[in-house]
Amino acid sequence: MKIIIDAMGGDNAPKEMLLGAAAAVREYGVQIVAVGRREQIEECAKENGIELAGITVANASETIEMCDEPTAAIRRKKDSSMVVGLRMLAAGEGDAFVSAGATGALLAGATLIVKRLKGVKRPAIGTVIPGAQQPYLLLDSGANVECRPEMLNAFAVMGSVYMEKVMGRKNPAVALVNNGAEETKGTPAYVQAHGLLRANRNIRFAGNIEPRDVPAGNADVVVCDGFTGNVILKLTEGVAKMLMGELKSVFMSSPKTKLAYLLVKDGLRGFKKKLDADEHGGALMLGVSKPVIKAHGSSNAKAFCNAIRQAKLCVERGAVESMREKLAAADDAEQAQEQSGPAVRCKEKKE
Amino acid sequence: MKIIIDAMGGDNAPKEMLLGAAAAVREYGVQIVAVGRREQIEECAKENGIELAGITVANASETIEMCDEPTAAIRRKKDSSMVVGLRMLAAGEGDAFVSAGATGALLAGATLIVKRLKGVKRPAIGTVIPGAQQPYLLLDSGANVECRPEMLNAFAVMGSVYMEKVMGRKNPAVALVNNGAEETKGTPAYVQAHGLLRANRNIRFAGNIEPRDVPAGNADVVVCDGFTGNVILKLTEGVAKMLMGELKSVFMSSPKTKLAYLLVKDGLRGFKKKLDADEHGGALMLGVSKPVIKAHGSSNAKAFCNAIRQAKLCVERGAVESMREKLAAADDAEQAQEQSGPAVRCKEKKE
Repeated sequence: MKIIIDAMGGDNAPKEMLLGAAAAVREYGVQIVAVGRREQIEECAKENGIELAGITVANASETIEMCDEPTAAIRRKKDSSMVVGLRMLAAGEGDAFVSAGATGALLAGATLIVKRLKGVKRPAIGTVIPGAQQPYLLLDSGANVECRPEMLNAFAVMGSVYMEKVMGRKNPAVALVNNGAEETKGTPAYVQAHGLLRANRNIRFAGNIEPRDVPAGNADVVVCDGFTGNVILKLTEGVAKMLMGELKSVFMSSPKTKLAYLLVKDGLRGFKKKLDADEHGGALMLGVSKPVIKAHGSSNAKAFCNAIRQAKLCVERGAVESMREKLAAADDAEQAQEQSGPAVRCKEKKE
Repeated sequence: MKIIIDAMGGDNAPKEMLLGAAAAVREYGVQIVAVGRREQIEECAKENGIELAGITVANASETIEMCDEPTAAIRRKKDSSMVVGLRMLAAGEGDAFVSAGATGALLAGATLIVKRLKGVKRPAIGTVIPGAQQPYLLLDSGANVECRPEMLNAFAVMGSVYMEKVMGRKNPAVALVNNGAEETKGTPAYVQAHGLLRANRNIRFAGNIEPRDVPAGNADVVVCDGFTGNVILKLTEGVAKMLMGELKSVFMSSPKTKLAYLLVKDGLRGFKKKLDADEHGGALMLGVSKPVIKAHGSSNAKAFCNAIRQAKLCVERGAVESMREKLAAADDAEQAQEQSGPAVRCKEKKE
């Protein structure tokens, strides 16, 4: 198996990317193609004692920066590590692509170069988030600020396949974020999406899930539009950050509480690890015809290695092929249902 | 000053409502009109030794239940404590109305009976949420799943007035929830709302606020549509609940960690108090022509008394009058801007 990596994308590139890649070669037996400036890669490997066994280098002279406008960057920087890597993936020169570079550009590039699965209007970004019971997959966690009901239905199918094939969940429960349990809740488009999900025989639809219940992790797959998903993803981080900060103040407030901290430190470490998104790999571009994984921009070697592992699992377990099948089946069923009412976008009322 | 209360609404009615009302009479010197079944109120007061000094009873034979369809309940249960109370408020027989009953019904009733301020298409529910720095006002926290840009602009004005007049913030900062800082971010309607807020001379617009930054409490007023607001409100609760649960497990895991808990207990109490939404009173029906406050359904006497205090502050500080003024000014400015582009609803693309 050959995983193509963007050696130049991310805050800590190329060093952490190469360290992560080398670890992946050792631990998972994958072959790696590292895309980027050959000289810079080889020098970095030499300086840091990184074994390039199992890693070939594919040259790319440009890099897409965080501030670049995504679609423009993909179209213009044809020799960037990201575009070269995606092209190689599309041409079958590797089985998956992993990058810690700019999310918007990766999404645009994956859509334009690697292309979408049939039945997917727009790919979604899927993020695995730690939950109380177990981690859950949230999608769309930010790609599409507006979504038609059919898009949410496609997200449901792909998310379900991912959690089953890659995360090993049996018959994963799919839930639709909404402001109440009843099928009449939400905007007209959410009401319609609810109907599509309920009729979809390719998923186990568990109904609406209210925001308060999302962090419990009882649903395996949590579906929503990208605006809402971005709120869920980022607010979860923000609330956790606020609470941990407040907690730290409490612990540091007196000698008594400092002692308490020493006694509970190890336990807290396990707690933090559970909440650490890095443990779960990167975010997935779901709906693209081959596996594309976005590692956190600030990924260190461990996080990047986890993202490569995630890519490997996607390939090994035929996640994309399975999505292709189930999307085709869901698409047919949807055609039938659509004849019964007009399509509406999320959160819009028909005039 | 006379505050009308719904003695029958809420899980712990009428006892906690009456205890809270009696406390408010003692602590704040307000007069209370308690609306509900006279016999039940008088018997409850007698059984629990509640002083009815300063409290008059207005009879209402029916109660709106949590499961009743809101608008139907308001129209049909004309002798319910909620409808009778709202009618009294509309007729000037009191200065504000406080209820712990069903939110949907209270919103429908306030809109239909007490009526809206000019310039408000739909009232919003505003909720004060604890933030790291300080509490912030979130609106719309759930009334309207779809919002036009003008509605968001009105929310901004009302929220700003509330935080200034009632919470004493100087020149409150108003921020618009969005998935990035740039003015081009979000759906077309959010882009348009951003423009309206920026041009609005009645508020201090601090730009977009990303979900990750909302819990810090740096913005005094956080504006968004009701679907998103419901997610922010309820997810904050859900993440806090999950983290506190995990933390408790850590503390209870061994004798060592249990000792740590004993040492840090008092500090944690302050922490929990800060996060306690009950401390901040109830939720406000903003955009209604007189103060209407929704106390938590599970309110105890203290929470209900706080909600009455909140109502008193709204009245004393002329919050509604101030909103009326500023909405009129903002409305004129908006007419001018609307001529430059078509109105779009939140999260819809114009075909």
